[in-house]
Amino acid sequence: MLLFKTMTESQRLREQLQTIAKLGSALAVLSWDEEVNLPPKAHAYRGEVSALLSAEIHRKFTSDEFVKLARKLNSDSQSLSADDRVNAEETWRDVSRAQKLPVKFVEDLTRLTSEAFGAWAEARKQKDFKIYEPVLKRMVDMKRQEAELIGFKVSPYDALLDEFEPGMTSAQLDKLFSPIAKNLSALIKQAKNKKQQSLPKAFYELGAQTKLCHEVSETLGYDFDTGRIDASPHPFTTSFHQTDVRVTTRYDEADFWVSLGSTIHEIGHALYEQGLPAEHFGTPLGQAISLGVHESQSRMWENFVGRSREFSEYLYPLLKKYFPDQKLKFTSRELHLWLNRVKPNLIRVESDEVTYNLHIILRYEIEKQLVEGRLKVSELPAVWNQKMKDYLGLDVPDDAQGVLQDVHWAHGAIGYFPTYSLGNLYAAQLYNTVSQKIPGLAKGFSSGDFAKLLGWLRQNIHAEGRRYKPAELLEKLTGEPPNPAYLQEHLERVIKLG
Amino acid sequence: MLLFKTMTESQRLREQLQTIAKLGSALAVLSWDEEVNLPPKAHAYRGEVSALLSAEIHRKFTSDEFVKLARKLNSDSQSLSADDRVNAEETWRDVSRAQKLPVKFVEDLTRLTSEAFGAWAEARKQKDFKIYEPVLKRMVDMKRQEAELIGFKVSPYDALLDEFEPGMTSAQLDKLFSPIAKNLSALIKQAKNKKQQSLPKAFYELGAQTKLCHEVSETLGYDFDTGRIDASPHPFTTSFHQTDVRVTTRYDEADFWVSLGSTIHEIGHALYEQGLPAEHFGTPLGQAISLGVHESQSRMWENFVGRSREFSEYLYPLLKKYFPDQKLKFTSRELHLWLNRVKPNLIRVESDEVTYNLHIILRYEIEKQLVEGRLKVSELPAVWNQKMKDYLGLDVPDDAQGVLQDVHWAHGAIGYFPTYSLGNLYAAQLYNTVSQKIPGLAKGFSSGDFAKLLGWLRQNIHAEGRRYKPAELLEKLTGEPPNPAYLQEHLERVIKLG
Repeated sequence: MLLFKTMTESQRLREQLQTIAKLGSALAVLSWDEEVNLPPKAHAYRGEVSALLSAEIHRKFTSDEFVKLARKLNSDSQSLSADDRVNAEETWRDVSRAQKLPVKFVEDLTRLTSEAFGAWAEARKQKDFKIYEPVLKRMVDMKRQEAELIGFKVSPYDALLDEFEPGMTSAQLDKLFSPIAKNLSALIKQAKNKKQQSLPKAFYELGAQTKLCHEVSETLGYDFDTGRIDASPHPFTTSFHQTDVRVTTRYDEADFWVSLGSTIHEIGHALYEQGLPAEHFGTPLGQAISLGVHESQSRMWENFVGRSREFSEYLYPLLKKYFPDQKLKFTSRELHLWLNRVKPNLIRVESDEVTYNLHIILRYEIEKQLVEGRLKVSELPAVWNQKMKDYLGLDVPDDAQGVLQDVHWAHGAIGYFPTYSLGNLYAAQLYNTVSQKIPGLAKGFSSGDFAKLLGWLRQNIHAEGRRYKPAELLEKLTGEPPNPAYLQEHLERVIKLG
Repeated sequence: MLLFKTMTESQRLREQLQTIAKLGSALAVLSWDEEVNLPPKAHAYRGEVSALLSAEIHRKFTSDEFVKLARKLNSDSQSLSADDRVNAEETWRDVSRAQKLPVKFVEDLTRLTSEAFGAWAEARKQKDFKIYEPVLKRMVDMKRQEAELIGFKVSPYDALLDEFEPGMTSAQLDKLFSPIAKNLSALIKQAKNKKQQSLPKAFYELGAQTKLCHEVSETLGYDFDTGRIDASPHPFTTSFHQTDVRVTTRYDEADFWVSLGSTIHEIGHALYEQGLPAEHFGTPLGQAISLGVHESQSRMWENFVGRSREFSEYLYPLLKKYFPDQKLKFTSRELHLWLNRVKPNLIRVESDEVTYNLHIILRYEIEKQLVEGRLKVSELPAVWNQKMKDYLGLDVPDDAQGVLQDVHWAHGAIGYFPTYSLGNLYAAQLYNTVSQKIPGLAKGFSSGDFAKLLGWLRQNIHAEGRRYKPAELLEKLTGEPPNPAYLQEHLERVIKLG
């Protein structure tokens, strides 16, 4: 009788989570539409609609009844089946965090992100940080307030980071990042003395790029019956459900890799979402583990697959097919070297995979200082520009190419940037393992065989939902906790190659 | 003190209506996205999300607290300001109608429309009415039951019609439609003996058509800062808010008017929505009067503007500009005649503006008899085919091109068809007035001056929201109640021209 009762409660939890997830999907459609389609003057009202739905989700998620149910199931979790236990414990992790934020705070924050997005876009267009500064200041203040509401042991930054990377702290981040950061300056200096591969100038027509991106995405395993690719200024992936996982990319007619590289990256995210178990939709078992693990998927496809010698062999004939007028004036070998060139770039999303990590460390340091109250928003452009000079040796000509280049802070996503480099770190460690487990893995890439890699990721990572914490998953699959050595080795190889 | 209390209640009504309207906007975004963007396998889940939001809206709109507030304000409405009175009375009209339908009835009807849509689509594919007949019979039974629940004086059809065209009755419809129906058969026989204008075959590239539609829409007064145009199989307009009113169109590369004509029609709807007073958003004062008045706007722009001689003069150089390869093998005069050709067609949505009205009258007569119990669903194909022969002189080769061509009845939309011809009738009467009030109105069209017409519509119709009933609005603006003479005269002119 007790068992029966407990099963009923687990079932009730599932049902309530699924209702919340449906409202979450509606909100996600509104957000996708906002990035991809919204008419310029519609932002203010869209913000109000999103705020209303957001508040409704938060209300349901933190209702007395639901919190009581989640608390009860969490405290009884040892008596539950393995699946129900994961859902009970992980739901409680989410609920106990959410209920610390008052409804009004969540509403205000949602409204502010909508306003901030508009101001950011305008500031970027006008290349003028001042337009963005007042609203960003309010955003930082709200995120500091959020950290206080959530609570933390050492740094308020940890409270924000934990939302994106469960269990991670800034102290641990410092340990994982510092050996990488330390070597990078030296490595980049080495690279500076080498002549980097370049490709002759060419024109890659937008329509043909779109078709190329579609063919590559499909070959990697992306299902267009449950997804679509659109254009947006800042590429992203969003999932409304396993049957509707959408990707965006952006185009540059002088460089096919701008769209293809970002597409492969986003497809890495999308393959994870399309591969989550649909029968657990809405519950933790149907969700991705963390942003870091999510990023490990996109980075693995972008860097470990997309920048491999074998991928260049696969890609080369496709470039001939889609850009027949260009009569490619380079070899497949040169394509591979070009994709692995290392050259400091002002823009994060256009950076090579080596210097990219310095972009992240720069942002991590800045946002940590902002949240800890050791840096003012008004000082941002100056500090940004100084760090760009120190780390990458670059002068920032204007704010659009500097502090205004990323949308994240406008979205309220502070504590998010480190997950990009964590993703690189996890990807390197996981790829090292899967390469050993599947002999000839990379060889298959040259003929467009990506199914073995996807199969392994699906079975070992995607199918598990949130069953493991990021560090547990790494340890289970690779035999050791997160270790920066694999990424370091990989980046050294790239630098020698480029 | 009483006045203060009443004002507070009006304010509360506004706020609650605006919250419901925001949820309605979210639902409308989901529907727009479903028509324009949805991946093939995502329909089932999207249906669940929309159903959840739909139910939430219905729940809020019929909650005891909200109904009580609406009833109270309606009964006190004489003591309110003019604006508050409109909102109180019109809201009560909506609420009292909604609450007459038990939740279970609404649920059953929603389920039945879903089943009916499937049966209709299959029957249409198989060209076999028998597949649709049983579920359509249940639909008619439910709509008759709905009429009983709503209540009516003369005909149960009036209860259904009133949802789409407030205050209209079938007795009035008979008076308005019969003189038009009477003359049309004779007129169409005249037209049959005339040679109709045709245009030489040509290829109109899709991208250029898109640009043409954008330029024309902008010139008509559509604001792309608060709207956008996309492609969908069935063109439609949807408004999320006055700052986000979207239009879709469809393309045929053999006929530029397929996209341009449907664009101008939808832009007519969109201009109305963009012109509703934003300060009253969500309340009756911020809403369109009726489907008939909405259609009067789309029909005025499509037929009275878009098919005028002056519009052909405006359009001709644009066709040269956007399709330079085609070296137009026709004159502006021939373009105008071609746009006004009259030829009976089996399919409503492909019909010219003259015979279109016979399509509507046929459907109106049939659905009225169905609801009044004077016609059996099993008799539908025979009656349809006989009427097509009598009115349009056409033999119906199969049910797909006959009684199965429209989705409306499967959606439960019975009492909706007449609003299409009411739109034509209102448009003719209103256009007659505005032409007299603004001398040289049509002349301006030839040089792309549409601002005077839009200005008049904005001031006299759009800005008023639901302040007047359709018949009151017509009387106020034209000095007489709805009168079929203007449409008759117009259609006679078209037939002589075509």
